[in-house]
This record gives sequence, C-alpha cells and structure tokens, in this order.
Amino acid sequence: MSGDALGLVGLGHIGCSIARGLREAGAVRAVFGHDADAETGELARALGIVDAVHADPSALAAHAELLVLAVPPSAIAPLCARLQPALGPQHVVTDVGSIKGQVLRDVRAQLGEAPAWFVPGHPIAGTEKQGPRAASGELFRDRHVVLTPEAGTGDAAVARVQEMWKRLGARVALLDADAHDRLLAGLSHLPHVLSYALIEVLAERFPLEEIRRYSAGGLLDFTRIASSSPELWTDICRGNRAQLAAVLDHYRAHLEELAGALRADRPETLHASFAAAKRARDRLRGADS
Amino acid sequence: MSGDALGLVGLGHIGCSIARGLREAGAVRAVFGHDADAETGELARALGIVDAVHADPSALAAHAELLVLAVPPSAIAPLCARLQPALGPQHVVTDVGSIKGQVLRDVRAQLGEAPAWFVPGHPIAGTEKQGPRAASGELFRDRHVVLTPEAGTGDAAVARVQEMWKRLGARVALLDADAHDRLLAGLSHLPHVLSYALIEVLAERFPLEEIRRYSAGGLLDFTRIASSSPELWTDICRGNRAQLAAVLDHYRAHLEELAGALRADRPETLHASFAAAKRARDRLRGADS
Repeated sequence: MSGDALGLVGLGHIGCSIARGLREAGAVRAVFGHDADAETGELARALGIVDAVHADPSALAAHAELLVLAVPPSAIAPLCARLQPALGPQHVVTDVGSIKGQVLRDVRAQLGEAPAWFVPGHPIAGTEKQGPRAASGELFRDRHVVLTPEAGTGDAAVARVQEMWKRLGARVALLDADAHDRLLAGLSHLPHVLSYALIEVLAERFPLEEIRRYSAGGLLDFTRIASSSPELWTDICRGNRAQLAAVLDHYRAHLEELAGALRADRPETLHASFAAAKRARDRLRGADS
Repeated sequence: MSGDALGLVGLGHIGCSIARGLREAGAVRAVFGHDADAETGELARALGIVDAVHADPSALAAHAELLVLAVPPSAIAPLCARLQPALGPQHVVTDVGSIKGQVLRDVRAQLGEAPAWFVPGHPIAGTEKQGPRAASGELFRDRHVVLTPEAGTGDAAVARVQEMWKRLGARVALLDADAHDRLLAGLSHLPHVLSYALIEVLAERFPLEEIRRYSAGGLLDFTRIASSSPELWTDICRGNRAQLAAVLDHYRAHLEELAGALRADRPETLHASFAAAKRARDRLRGADS
C-alpha cells in the first residue's frame, strides 16, 4: 500500500497517531482528513499530519481507497451511511471504536446489512491523551488490534486493514464482536468507570488540597484514566451498557463481600482475596514489563 | 542528630529506605537493626544498610536513642510493650504504620497510657516494592509525613522525629489520628481494595492470557498496587475497618447509581459524573506532575 493515500475521518489522538505511523513507515503517499471541528482539522494540517482537510467526509473517497473512521462509536454508523454513495468496489472502510457489537447493529440498521467494504476494528492502545499534538506513530507498536469481521465482510477488505495495522507494528487478532465487547467491558470499560468513580467519591469527601497532600503515587496511577474524555467514555459505556452493567454487578458483589468481611472482622477472607489478586497481577506483570 | 545511631525494627522496603536516606544525608553514625526474618536481616547487613543485626529488638535500645518501628500496624503495640523496660528518658520511638487510631488504642491498652516517648508517624510514600534490595534513600523526598502526637506525647520527642524526616527531604504535618485514618481510608486503603478486587474479578471471568493480550496500559497502571503485600494490606484494612467500610459503602452507592444509569440508558447521568471526575483529576494532576 506504499503508493496509496489514506482518508482519515476524525483527527483526534488515535486518528493522527495512525496517520503519523503510516507516514513514518513510508506506507502512505498522502493523507486526506476530515474533522467535525474545523480548528482540529487546521491543527492537524499545520502539524503536517494530514496534507489536506475536507469539510465533507464523503469527499475523501475521491482521494483515497482506504478510509479510517477514528470517531466515537455512535458516530460510525451515520458516517458509513453518509459515505456509502461515494464508495466504489475499490474502497475499504475501517473504524477504531472501543465497542463493536452496537456499532455493527447500528450499521446494519442504517444500511440494511453489514456491507462488504466495512471492517470493524479496535486498536487496544489506550491513552488518556487527546488531540493531534500528542499523536505518536509508535502508539500501536506491539499492541493488539482486534478486527471483528462478519459473514458478509469482504476477505480482501480484511486483508487490507490487517496490512495497515502490521505496517504500524501492531499484532492483529480476529474475534467475534460480542466476545470482544465482553472482554473489553472488563479490561477497559470497567476500569475507566472505577477510576472516574473513585475521583468523584474522593472529591465529595475531601478538599482537593488534602487529596493532593496526602495521596501517594498509587492514587495518581490509579486515576490516570479518569483524565480521559467524558464525552467519548459516555459514548463507549452507553454502547456496551449490557456487558458493562454485567461486569459492574460482578464487581459490586465482590466489594460487598469485602465490606462484609471488614465489618465482621474476618481478616482471613480479606487475605485470601488479596493474595489471589496479587498472584494474578504478578503473573500478568511478569509477561508485560 | 549527625552523631546519633539509629535503631531500626523491621528491615523491609520502608525501614531500609529510611536507613539509606539517613546514611546518604550523613545524618546517622550507625544503624542497628532487627527483623523477625533472619534472612532479611542478613540481606540488609550484606547490602550495607545496617551495621549490625540483633535477634532481640530490645537490644537496639543499648545502641541507639532513636528507634524506628517499620513493621505492620498490628505489630507496633506489642513491640512498644516489649521495648519499654529497655527505654530511658533519652529514648524516642516512632513508627511508620499506615493507620494511627487502632495503633494508639492498642498501645494504650498494652501500656496503660500513651507513653511520652512514642511519636506515631506515617510517611505517605507508597510503593508496591518489598524488601531491602529496592530500598531508596530518595523515597521520602518531597513526600508528606503525618505525625499524630497525643496530649501526653513529649514535645522533644516530636521535634526529634520531625528532624529525622526533614533530613530525609520529607514535609511533616501534624494531624489528629482519626482525621488521618479517615483521609487514608479514602486516599490509600480504598484504592488498594479496588485494585485487588478488579484483578480478582477479571481473573474469575477471563483466562490470564486474554487479559494480557487485550488490556492496554491503563489496566496495568490501575492494578500496580495489587502487587502490594497481601499480609500488610490485610493488617492495614483490618486496623482501619470502620473508616474503610464507610468509604467503601459510599463508593458502592456511587457504582450502584452508575449501574442504574447504564441499565436505564441515561447517558446524561454518566456524562455529568465522568465530567466532574475529569475536572477534579485534571486539577489534581496540575499540581502534582
């Protein structure tokens, strides 16, 4: 794809990191962009991340065969509907949304069926950073990207999107959309909710100045993801609300057990729980750091 | 105190970091140590952190006027009782326990009153690291240390402990023991419980290999503190169980609201909550990073 152009809808941190990475890999000839916010588009152009910005996302199809939708999940299906009239058999469209099941249901509802040209994708490379300035071409290196093609998704389209992610240094896995959403509800959406909730509860109980003074590094680590965009995360949580509510119930039941063990002074229950968690965490860390 | 010796009971990460820091500051002549685990004592000696190790903690009083108890909270009162016969008017004893109210109640129960020579302390410098090897003389630099002296605590004893922490680069604050425990229940003990609980719930739902593959950096940050010692944290949570159960109830009620908003599809409730949290987190980070 080295001679190809990229069409990029959504010039936030993820979108601009894709563009930067493909440029650095010499894998694109040019990048044509669109962002709902004109100022963001102008910034991405000024930073040299995109070559030109178009006010109409459909216009990108005239310049590029590969289109990446780096927008919040609820914006993906309406964009697919808007792009469709401009697409020919040469086009491939993929997204980076953190949820897949609801996106596919929305796409089917808007287009009548899952189109062959749409390859649902999700790069698992979280960051609380926002906007083009912090974009990094290395964001996806050695990270996993999940694609969730459906029965009707074109094989060549899947192969083209796989190739794009490989050029960014990522490892691609194919999963069922519901399996993806169940996993991500636990591994990503729940931690975000817990982090936001912790900061909110602490801010209700203590003046910020006391939180600042009397908290150790652990609290700042723990709540880093609470600096993520509230708009985006509302959209993600809403789109995966059944799976997220299920894992949240599991978590709340576990906290209830721990609260009961505290009140009844059963330290052996606390210890068994903490020790099991530490064993799992140490095994996780062993492979990742 | 540059000519003084230090007596150190407990040669774990915190105790050894105190010894290293005082040595590096030229603030101690010699360090005499004791650890319940003979191998840990030998390691601290071999690393040059302590000059000599004594099998009986009371023996340290013959070598040093300032004694630091760097042991889990429940071990502090029994140690005070054991040390008392060996102490003279020249001695000062302080601790580093993460809880203060229960420690003081235990000390009063064992000794009949809060002794003038005991200065309750807590350096807020969390780390999940354990043991002498990772000890750092810089661990306390620019961190806050809370002392919670009682009516009967000697002024000169408090001044001596303050001086020690200043030589380690820390800032000292005096607080009421219950105010300390209420703050730390929220800022430290709750995040540890949430982190342990998250790992345990995820390990119940998913194979570790899937957690490893499909989690982003956020999850590892979020669960770093779940690698802390289960024994120590059981002791801390148990010792602060009333305050911890109270803030845990507050947190659980907040999660219940969020779960309700998910199930009823009220995105505006999620958004208001996430946005308030992000504002607070960004203000916290502004001052700390």
